Amino acid sequence: MSRPASTPRHPVVTGDLYAEVRTFYARQMRRVDSLDIEGFADTFVEDGEVVHAGGRRQRGRAEMIAGMRAALPRYRDIAVRHWFDHLLIEPDPADPDVIRTSYYTLVTQTDRSGKVCFQPTFTVADVLVRRDGRLLTLSRVIEQDSPVEPAVGSEERSAA
Amino acid sequence: MSRPASTPRHPVVTGDLYAEVRTFYARQMRRVDSLDIEGFADTFVEDGEVVHAGGRRQRGRAEMIAGMRAALPRYRDIAVRHWFDHLLIEPDPADPDVIRTSYYTLVTQTDRSGKVCFQPTFTVADVLVRRDGRLLTLSRVIEQDSPVEPAVGSEERSAA
Amino acid sequence: MSRPASTPRHPVVTGDLYAEVRTFYARQMRRVDSLDIEGFADTFVEDGEVVHAGGRRQRGRAEMIAGMRAALPRYRDIAVRHWFDHLLIEPDPADPDVIRTSYYTLVTQTDRSGKVCFQPTFTVADVLVRRDGRLLTLSRVIEQDSPVEPAVGSEERSAA
Repeated sequence: MSRPASTPRHPVVTGDLYAEVRTFYARQMRRVDSLDIEGFADTFVEDGEVVHAGGRRQRGRAEMIAGMRAALPRYRDIAVRHWFDHLLIEPDPADPDVIRTSYYTLVTQTDRSGKVCFQPTFTVADVLVRRDGRLLTLSRVIEQDSPVEPAVGSEERSAA
Repeated sequence: MSRPASTPRHPVVTGDLYAEVRTFYARQMRRVDSLDIEGFADTFVEDGEVVHAGGRRQRGRAEMIAGMRAALPRYRDIAVRHWFDHLLIEPDPADPDVIRTSYYTLVTQTDRSGKVCFQPTFTVADVLVRRDGRLLTLSRVIEQDSPVEPAVGSEERSAA
Repeated sequence: MSRPASTPRHPVVTGDLYAEVRTFYARQMRRVDSLDIEGFADTFVEDGEVVHAGGRRQRGRAEMIAGMRAALPRYRDIAVRHWFDHLLIEPDPADPDVIRTSYYTLVTQTDRSGKVCFQPTFTVADVLVRRDGRLLTLSRVIEQDSPVEPAVGSEERSAA
């Protein structure tokens, strides 16, 4: 708000970077949705970290793999798909190989009869790093979307 | 149809423009979905216009803000998320700072228990303008998707 | 897996190609969702092929149009929308005018009251070709997503 209007507020996202990041997630989500646990873990750095909605924290591929294996039974009869939208990409101004992202996530679960159920919606914030030309996830924080208390003026508050 | 096949029917959308427009919407939707009403209004030009599904018309940021404030009670216990897809971008051939867009919209409402409900689907048509390097919405027309009467041949009509 | 980590596993997708393919699908889906059957068929090559989930195969625009006309009655009172995500684009290394793609698909059906129903989720694999500067679909294979048998280690198998 305090910056002059002519100053871009955010670093520009090139089309090439946009395509690169979208393609990274397209591959990563195919792995998790096909229950390719090791393949999914390989899209993280060795000591990558995931903070799940609710606060559970997994650090390192081994812990990630163990956690996902433990959850496998719940996917026995459903096909899960993670849908993303509204990807924001913020390259680190000091290091083009570090990229902060955030995106909406909707998770469908289709059972054998074709019936689709939905998990609550989530917003995810990642830090990606480019190593040897490939993107990897360094960290991921998943938050379940919850109702917000809107910032309203005093008239609205007193009227409520 | 009447143009030769070698003539592109539409102006080419560069990757950079695609990323710019997607990023604009990713930020704009975060504002509306977090009930940041003033922040959302700031993504429109001062006298921007929205025509809602059903025909209600809002003109100018002040009217937009008042309308959104009046609607706040219905979001007290839900997290709303707008999901976009199939974005079409048509830069004005005469003015690269005027861009017509259209996109599909699906709106989820997640309650405190995590249950997801869906509003009807919509198709939105915007005119965006670039001012001081930043995109802003000049106008928006929102239409609820409704069944179409397919254009069928005479055999199909008489058989129906 | 056997390649050194420094070798990209996949050809790079430029931002321009990403935008071109997304724009192609945005137009193609508007045609199918508006029940513009001939217009939809025109986005395929003359002898294009579609393999539907379940195995039904349509070859050529005429067969495609006949099949879609036969299905029209089921869309009499619903607005259908195809939502895509996680688009993968793989240009043919030997021919830049041949592009393999794959994407997630979610199909909504909104009735006249605004109620939204969902078809099972699908994954689609296309081959696109560029002719006279325009993309066309050469072939499409649609698969309904189904539960997968995860590849688990021996401990997990014996414990199951």
